[in-house]
Amino acid sequence: MSGLIGLDWGTSSLRAYWLDTAGEIRETRTRPWGIRHLPEGGFDAALADITAGWPQLPRLACGMVGSRQGWMEVPYMDLPADTAQLGSAVRSLRAHDGSDVHIVPGLRNPHSPDVIRGEETQLLGALALRPALIPDSSWIMPGTHSKWARVRDGAVTDFCTLMTGELFALLRQHSILCAGVGDAAASPDAFSRGVIAARDSGSAGGFSRLFSARALMLDGALAPDAVPEYLSGLLIGEELRSGLASNRFRHDAPLQLIGDAALCARYRLAAVHFDIDLVESLPDAAAHGLWQIACDIGLIGAGSSTAAKETSPC
Amino acid sequence: MSGLIGLDWGTSSLRAYWLDTAGEIRETRTRPWGIRHLPEGGFDAALADITAGWPQLPRLACGMVGSRQGWMEVPYMDLPADTAQLGSAVRSLRAHDGSDVHIVPGLRNPHSPDVIRGEETQLLGALALRPALIPDSSWIMPGTHSKWARVRDGAVTDFCTLMTGELFALLRQHSILCAGVGDAAASPDAFSRGVIAARDSGSAGGFSRLFSARALMLDGALAPDAVPEYLSGLLIGEELRSGLASNRFRHDAPLQLIGDAALCARYRLAAVHFDIDLVESLPDAAAHGLWQIACDIGLIGAGSSTAAKETSPC
Repeated sequence: MSGLIGLDWGTSSLRAYWLDTAGEIRETRTRPWGIRHLPEGGFDAALADITAGWPQLPRLACGMVGSRQGWMEVPYMDLPADTAQLGSAVRSLRAHDGSDVHIVPGLRNPHSPDVIRGEETQLLGALALRPALIPDSSWIMPGTHSKWARVRDGAVTDFCTLMTGELFALLRQHSILCAGVGDAAASPDAFSRGVIAARDSGSAGGFSRLFSARALMLDGALAPDAVPEYLSGLLIGEELRSGLASNRFRHDAPLQLIGDAALCARYRLAAVHFDIDLVESLPDAAAHGLWQIACDIGLIGAGSSTAAKETSPC
Repeated sequence: MSGLIGLDWGTSSLRAYWLDTAGEIRETRTRPWGIRHLPEGGFDAALADITAGWPQLPRLACGMVGSRQGWMEVPYMDLPADTAQLGSAVRSLRAHDGSDVHIVPGLRNPHSPDVIRGEETQLLGALALRPALIPDSSWIMPGTHSKWARVRDGAVTDFCTLMTGELFALLRQHSILCAGVGDAAASPDAFSRGVIAARDSGSAGGFSRLFSARALMLDGALAPDAVPEYLSGLLIGEELRSGLASNRFRHDAPLQLIGDAALCARYRLAAVHFDIDLVESLPDAAAHGLWQIACDIGLIGAGSSTAAKETSPC
């Protein structure tokens, strides 16, 4: 029997995929066991639990599991990196159950100090699903730490991290901007106003407009319960303004999204104000990226390729 | 006997000045009784304590004491505003001891949603001390919420708020950037590197470089205890980059500083990397501004003007 168990193992959650001999996802399981929230028994126990009842298959992981705080540190690779290059730097450990766990490295950007772990695998998986994007494409991966990335000739050639989600959480919970603001109300109008304020901030930058959230509220021009939506628009708007202004990421072709559907929907709403298109990605990009890398380093039995479908060839 | 008791009453502290008939400061007292940290007995008790033993003199206050959460709300005035215009909008309340307390309004920027309370009085006080700056000058007032302001013909004509100090505190205390970072070490080198990273961020903006604090640390290129200094440089550098890029504030002439001496020294260090001069202001600008306004609205006895010195004429 061939196939793969793919592990997308981040800071706050663990997702496991059972992929069949054709690289199709047969089953997906999720646990809240990020590397900082492991169950008793640690990494071994988490892995045994999440793969319980699945066949013995090669196991390939990506994400923070390969960081200094992870199961085993796998050094960052420098850009550019394609599937083969990532595969060549995979490292392996022997789990408590006696079989191996292989871990994909993260990437380091030597031109502008930055690192990613996990997103490189998602990107390469998404490319396998959308081969037309292999020659040249730009990507946004919204989240606590949003990533923008550029792909050329199938390799990740540039990326940067924008702390949009974390800044929103900090400002929402701890700043003067939301002092006295209770539960947030849905307000597409307030969200749009925030996006437009960031867009129109020009070279001064959207962070010069942060305090407008409070000034507008004090002025009665923004309802207190709409402040969080305004702030969300301001921060996502600033991410778009900044990313588009940098010229590191092309936007003459549609930008591709990878991420949580609800969050991606916010980015698409914001993008309207910048006259750009954001294309929603297919789900489970990490699983497809792990499959590609596993094929490249020979983790998948030779028999599997004959059964592989065109959409995810080994 | 004539003179003035000036009160600079903010969110976190209260400062009282006893000014003599010539507008000279005779005594200064400070208490940690900002409007959110009042002693038992509230505003009345705070005022009685901080002015204990001083003569009965007219009392003029500026700052958050005039906000909705203050002693009495004094509505914001719209820009532009000079001493006379501010004076015309002063409102008064009767304190528990039977005498009046007069409160200076804050300013509202109708062109770009923003408000200030207290800084308008400091600005006008600084102008009285440096009359050459009355025709046209630009000002930076570093702090939790830094202000940039423009003065023309003796009136405040523009300002904006940058949340530099609050963002630093949030990121220092709660963000991933400083996770595992203990006490900060003084590091002029790390500070400068942060300033330069923000300066060189160009139109993408310095916030696009926030994550570099972590990437450099993970890479061994920045000592963990130097991360806070790097972050301080990045945020102050971004404030300077943003303010200078906006073209609302002139920098063909030296910019004027008003604020805490240690913080202003950081701004002057950062300014070197932008090839601009920042001029330290004289202290107690608020006291001098309150004096100017008090003269303008006739709070000071007529006899006082004969004794006034040239540096702070009534």
